[in-house]
Amino acid sequence: MGNRSILLVERPTGMPNDKNFELVESEELPRLNEGEVLIQTIYLSVDPYMRGRMSGRKSYIEPFALNEVLSGGIVGQVIESKDGNFKVGDYVEGRLGWSDYNVAKSHQVRKLNPSIAPISTALGIVGMPGLTAYFGLLDIGEPKEGETVVVSGAAGAVGSTVGQIAKLKGCKVIGIAGTEEKCQYLKEDLHFDEVINYKTDNIKDKVKQYTPDGVDIYFDNVGGDISDEVIKRINYKARIILCGQISSYNATEIEHGPRIQGLLVQKSALMKGFIVGDYANNHEEGLKQLGEWVNSGKLQYRENIVEGLENAPHAFIGLFKGDNLGKQLVKVSDD
Amino acid sequence: MGNRSILLVERPTGMPNDKNFELVESEELPRLNEGEVLIQTIYLSVDPYMRGRMSGRKSYIEPFALNEVLSGGIVGQVIESKDGNFKVGDYVEGRLGWSDYNVAKSHQVRKLNPSIAPISTALGIVGMPGLTAYFGLLDIGEPKEGETVVVSGAAGAVGSTVGQIAKLKGCKVIGIAGTEEKCQYLKEDLHFDEVINYKTDNIKDKVKQYTPDGVDIYFDNVGGDISDEVIKRINYKARIILCGQISSYNATEIEHGPRIQGLLVQKSALMKGFIVGDYANNHEEGLKQLGEWVNSGKLQYRENIVEGLENAPHAFIGLFKGDNLGKQLVKVSDD
Repeated sequence: MGNRSILLVERPTGMPNDKNFELVESEELPRLNEGEVLIQTIYLSVDPYMRGRMSGRKSYIEPFALNEVLSGGIVGQVIESKDGNFKVGDYVEGRLGWSDYNVAKSHQVRKLNPSIAPISTALGIVGMPGLTAYFGLLDIGEPKEGETVVVSGAAGAVGSTVGQIAKLKGCKVIGIAGTEEKCQYLKEDLHFDEVINYKTDNIKDKVKQYTPDGVDIYFDNVGGDISDEVIKRINYKARIILCGQISSYNATEIEHGPRIQGLLVQKSALMKGFIVGDYANNHEEGLKQLGEWVNSGKLQYRENIVEGLENAPHAFIGLFKGDNLGKQLVKVSDD
Repeated sequence: MGNRSILLVERPTGMPNDKNFELVESEELPRLNEGEVLIQTIYLSVDPYMRGRMSGRKSYIEPFALNEVLSGGIVGQVIESKDGNFKVGDYVEGRLGWSDYNVAKSHQVRKLNPSIAPISTALGIVGMPGLTAYFGLLDIGEPKEGETVVVSGAAGAVGSTVGQIAKLKGCKVIGIAGTEEKCQYLKEDLHFDEVINYKTDNIKDKVKQYTPDGVDIYFDNVGGDISDEVIKRINYKARIILCGQISSYNATEIEHGPRIQGLLVQKSALMKGFIVGDYANNHEEGLKQLGEWVNSGKLQYRENIVEGLENAPHAFIGLFKGDNLGKQLVKVSDD
């Protein structure tokens, strides 16, 4: 049985492109050792944070090695097992290679229960992006009823979850996204109070118009000029939650912008960066709550699915063009 | 009995100057009503935050009114009382006018106990600046033994207290100040581990050299380029405490600098602005602890005293030139 994998063959400078990636094929799969399982990839997740790992720079997570298989969130099915806890047919999620098949040690994966939520959600709303929204908003933001919450990248996997949880907590939610379709989805389907299309609206005017009482919480996935306008509106003791800065992930040098420290002092405001790994000890609790909310219809989600392992690089590049509404997945094989 | 007062007659643009202020004399003092006391000013405090109040902009505290008496921290002595809780001779501290004499309601002042610490310290290390250091460092910074703490504006009233408390908590402390005299004082007298003279040292090199294990806490009184270099060195879960941004208080437009949000995400770091008023409910506890530390010699302080009410504007302007080592006071009358 052959295997296909996607390698990083060149570190991107600026926007990633096709030449950074290469699809390779191997004739056979490695044999399983005791305690290992063979997993056939069903879904593969592309996420903005991966851009950081593609540059050589050290960050909170090691850079991807050149000429090796890329890795990320994978949902798959066990097709061979040398571990008593896993049987053929089990669905699992783990951080594995961008390949048709992966050999994994059992501690590298978690078993999924398809009766709680569709298995693909283990890469989205009941997975890493959902947990990111959950802990960032609730632990750092501590939203209170009646507060005003602004979310950038609002139609993405994290942003759309943040906005919905904020609504569950009784907040007024304003989402910022980049297409009319996304804005309509946020307002009509997810019941955001207001939406701003940063590509067509005057952000400054709209932010001002929609936040007459100022901004208590800003959940920022984007950074840059959009954030500058939101941050100007913060209230006393506001919380700015820094989740991502996708607008600058492809920057080739450090960007400059207005210094915000003076405003943070004036407003006794907090700005906090985080990654989901900071909450590793609480993931189980978070997944349980998210699963319940999804199951009971309190949280909705959308997926944007591209077919074929060979199209994973394209799906990844699309993240930086704002192509995806909801969680971007690549479907590698049939469920 | 006549009274002299200093008015704000013009809002400063950029660096404040003599023309912004005017000394006026009145022939007599207002009569006391029930519940009021007449206070002769002994010390008057000039503080960087006052620059914000001199501009018309609304902030966490109302702007000073034009052509009215400036106000700030005052230590004085009761010379007449229509309140049973205060008797002639009592020492008090309060936020009062820049005048030889003030009529105050009793709730506007707190009584001082000169046996705990010299009365002038009620404007410094056992007063607002001391509390600022205490709550900022301990509540936001949560310093742990062995951590590396960097303080900018280290020789000022707040900074010198921050560094000493950090030493009491077992931290390694690096101070940044602007004269050799200040640096020597911090190192020799206050036992800071390392000092950097930002006017003569290469800040980037020195910060790197003195923080081989990175920066866990940065207590920032200054902002601007100096802070940029310190922030580059932050560790995972670092805390950046924004107390003041004196380098930009005289700026006439919003300054630009490197965007730091990306780094805060990478490091899961916190940046928090605050003012001492955020901790109003805990001031008593803080003053008690600071008084004990001063009394037992665990905290040292210096004062820089200018004589004469008429010289208060000069003393204030000097804050922005780095003139003061320790707390800047104006002595208005003899103790």
